[in-house]
Amino acid sequence: MRVLGVDPGLTRCGVGVVEGVAGRPLTLRGVGVVRTPADADLGHRLVAVEQGLERWLDEHRPEFVAVERVFSQHNVRTVMGTAQASAVAILCASRRGIPVALHTPSEVKAAVTGSGRADKAQVGAMVTRLLRLDAPPKPADAADALALAICHIWRAPAQNRLQQAAALHASQASRAPRAPHASKGRTA
Amino acid sequence: MRVLGVDPGLTRCGVGVVEGVAGRPLTLRGVGVVRTPADADLGHRLVAVEQGLERWLDEHRPEFVAVERVFSQHNVRTVMGTAQASAVAILCASRRGIPVALHTPSEVKAAVTGSGRADKAQVGAMVTRLLRLDAPPKPADAADALALAICHIWRAPAQNRLQQAAALHASQASRAPRAPHASKGRTA
Repeated sequence: MRVLGVDPGLTRCGVGVVEGVAGRPLTLRGVGVVRTPADADLGHRLVAVEQGLERWLDEHRPEFVAVERVFSQHNVRTVMGTAQASAVAILCASRRGIPVALHTPSEVKAAVTGSGRADKAQVGAMVTRLLRLDAPPKPADAADALALAICHIWRAPAQNRLQQAAALHASQASRAPRAPHASKGRTA
Repeated sequence: MRVLGVDPGLTRCGVGVVEGVAGRPLTLRGVGVVRTPADADLGHRLVAVEQGLERWLDEHRPEFVAVERVFSQHNVRTVMGTAQASAVAILCASRRGIPVALHTPSEVKAAVTGSGRADKAQVGAMVTRLLRLDAPPKPADAADALALAICHIWRAPAQNRLQQAAALHASQASRAPRAPHASKGRTA
């Protein structure tokens, strides 16, 4: 199972591809960050995030995409950018019929460290160990993206297969021309 | 000047196209709602919003897109969906090099009614009058989208021209292959 983990953000969007199955050693396929300039306008930044993620999807052809679930109890300015970047990630995957799973930060931390309240250093250390790397991936967004992918691989495989079938079905349905629910309007 | 107004939402995304210039009578070109099923998964809904908005952009070729600015002080569950739908609208326009303007609800209300605290009925009544319609557009999301477009047309035309030039420049820059700022990673 090949999973692309995405830690969404406009300034740094962490991406990491991990391959493996639950209970077997995991393999790192790629890790990096899609960056957009903080001084660019929002539209330009969202297009750059889309282009960056499309390249990762083209290159690695993941079977699943795992995205960090965004909550709005955090900093108001940050959370809007995070929500918008996550929308782009979910859109890019869903357009291709790739199932998307959302995991909360504490689910991810609990999966890789055993504690939902682990700090960044602990997550980085466990990602390094689980993927047999020489050093923790930098920046932390890249390590978090790998942790998301690992968390997803360790979920019940049967659940993933169901989700994959549902996402494929949905993507085929939404590709049908002029789906009656999708648009309703009148034109003067 | 032809403007597509977008009142972003996952369940109902209001869309309205208005043509005109400040100080002259305005013309309604189209109004409607892009709907997505509330029981579908988020990825499917974002793809449906994208497809719906792409059809409006294809059909009406607006020169500007005006999107309601989302704040996160509102209901937590609703605001995330609104932020994600607005990201799709901003992305669709920016990919085409169409400048995007964000207007707050109170800016829009003040523009069409004279008061930033006007209610839905008042906004609907003024949209009906300004576009010389027989009845207020339904649902309110559609009327709000038209109000956004009208608000945008009434902004300083010089400012719009500057923004149009900047958006075109940004879209050309982001279309350049492998922009060095957009992605940085390593592949195992």
